[in-house]
Amino acid sequence: MEKGAERARPKPLRLAVAPEADEAVVELVHQADAVVVDLADAQALAWTAWTDLASFPRSLPASVAWVQLPSAGIERWVEAGIIDRARVWTSAAGVCAVPVAEHALTLLLTGVRLLPESLRAAEWARTDLLPRAGTLGGTVVGIVGGGGIARALIPALTALGAEARVVNRSGRPVPGAAETRPIAGIGDFWEAVDHVVLAAPDTPDTRHLVGAAELDAMKPTAWLINVARGPIVDTEALLGALDSAGIAGAGLDVTDPEPLPAAHPLWGHPRAIVTPHIADAAMTRRGFRQRLADNVRRWTAGEELIGVVDPARGY
Amino acid sequence: MEKGAERARPKPLRLAVAPEADEAVVELVHQADAVVVDLADAQALAWTAWTDLASFPRSLPASVAWVQLPSAGIERWVEAGIIDRARVWTSAAGVCAVPVAEHALTLLLTGVRLLPESLRAAEWARTDLLPRAGTLGGTVVGIVGGGGIARALIPALTALGAEARVVNRSGRPVPGAAETRPIAGIGDFWEAVDHVVLAAPDTPDTRHLVGAAELDAMKPTAWLINVARGPIVDTEALLGALDSAGIAGAGLDVTDPEPLPAAHPLWGHPRAIVTPHIADAAMTRRGFRQRLADNVRRWTAGEELIGVVDPARGY
Repeated sequence: MEKGAERARPKPLRLAVAPEADEAVVELVHQADAVVVDLADAQALAWTAWTDLASFPRSLPASVAWVQLPSAGIERWVEAGIIDRARVWTSAAGVCAVPVAEHALTLLLTGVRLLPESLRAAEWARTDLLPRAGTLGGTVVGIVGGGGIARALIPALTALGAEARVVNRSGRPVPGAAETRPIAGIGDFWEAVDHVVLAAPDTPDTRHLVGAAELDAMKPTAWLINVARGPIVDTEALLGALDSAGIAGAGLDVTDPEPLPAAHPLWGHPRAIVTPHIADAAMTRRGFRQRLADNVRRWTAGEELIGVVDPARGY
Repeated sequence: MEKGAERARPKPLRLAVAPEADEAVVELVHQADAVVVDLADAQALAWTAWTDLASFPRSLPASVAWVQLPSAGIERWVEAGIIDRARVWTSAAGVCAVPVAEHALTLLLTGVRLLPESLRAAEWARTDLLPRAGTLGGTVVGIVGGGGIARALIPALTALGAEARVVNRSGRPVPGAAETRPIAGIGDFWEAVDHVVLAAPDTPDTRHLVGAAELDAMKPTAWLINVARGPIVDTEALLGALDSAGIAGAGLDVTDPEPLPAAHPLWGHPRAIVTPHIADAAMTRRGFRQRLADNVRRWTAGEELIGVVDPARGY
């Protein structure tokens, strides 16, 4: 607080940090020349708890014009009725895009190159695996969602000789994608691509976007990768497609239900690779801090904030 | 043969294809405006058998000025005393570089992101895995070997936010690498990098390049990836490092001995990912044909051949 005062900036941002003002965040706020204040005096609130929605103030002071939320996906905040239209809300959408894209690539490569079979083997199964192991080179990878994950994933796919086709809301071209089409005109997307990566927010529009018909349309050699949100895929339909070899396999970092119960048939399924929502490994907290620092700087400079939530869209 | 004659080129290359003149190769030779002849009349020989060294002619006609071998690594041809200095020998080095680089990336990502642990799990182990799962973003990946594999791997690493440092023979800078140093001045390479990818030929210089001292110098969080040749790593030393958690793990597409015997301790080792020499999946035969076609065209045009073997270096 002193630091902001010493520099005598005309209007340092008065920011409340709750429910826990951890040292790293406070240090970062000071570096951004803002001051940490109590909520009653605050112009903005940085909420630092990923899972604690219950202690979020039911009524914010009218002075709070901006709230920075900690997570990328904010559907639970929307469902809880926390997000109002009285102020600007920003999410951490995009900060984890690079590690999540890397995890999507990991799951896709792991599937295409039959790593689960190699890991189960206890002998040199070259004759069996060599003719069946694939490569991403020369393939077309369809990405549902044109946000930060797609933008981080596309250069890596391109470097491996794969082509990316993106489906997003607007159809506005995503840099590096060979094609971008709007979800309303998704057409033959499922059958045209070699693999599908789901990297879209969980909204009423995307819930169960991948069902029996879409899985049936996909190539039998296709891998379905989900690093977004479990409910985008109809789990029962997916199990059907995996059991009948309708697709080559599924790499899932998110599931529905989540956490996946111990007895669920996806565990140990020969065509499923399940990781327990770790795509954003180690980056979550760091990413939030970076986003907060960036937005504090932007607020102070009068620039547009990043990650502004549209309550109507739910992300 | 007729095709070359019809076009009345002054000197179509007279090429022998042995031990098997498969249709695809013959068609390709014709497309390149060369003619397929018996070995006795040949200027050049394309040898199409990966493993059949025994039937290779012990004495080639003096007219044979160039031999195209089918594989990328030619150490067995050198050991068998087949490669002489009486003519030019070309290997298929580099044709599989892109799929092999992809496999190296797959093994590295699989290791760093703890995929083997997720695949062994039968319950949602998020609390255990999230703090330990890593990312390549922000890491330094050391690559031993500055050939096609490194050149194909570096753009993918860069796209994921990792930095590549290369060790090669000459120290001549490899495009995209943050640093290239000669193997003679390898210095603190092993301790300075976060992970190591072996992508060098198997020569007397590289045999057991990675032994106990190198493994000991590597970071305890490091993954060692070998997509080159098994003997570059001292297997006993590696097992010691894995058993003592001296490094995080090893991703091996090649082993010593190879094939890895069924009872070998690397099978099922919690810190080892073994794939049965499938890095170049599906590309091998296609790659050889492309290389042959390219070299026939170059020969005819009087250009330098690709993949020329240096008998002194053994690759």
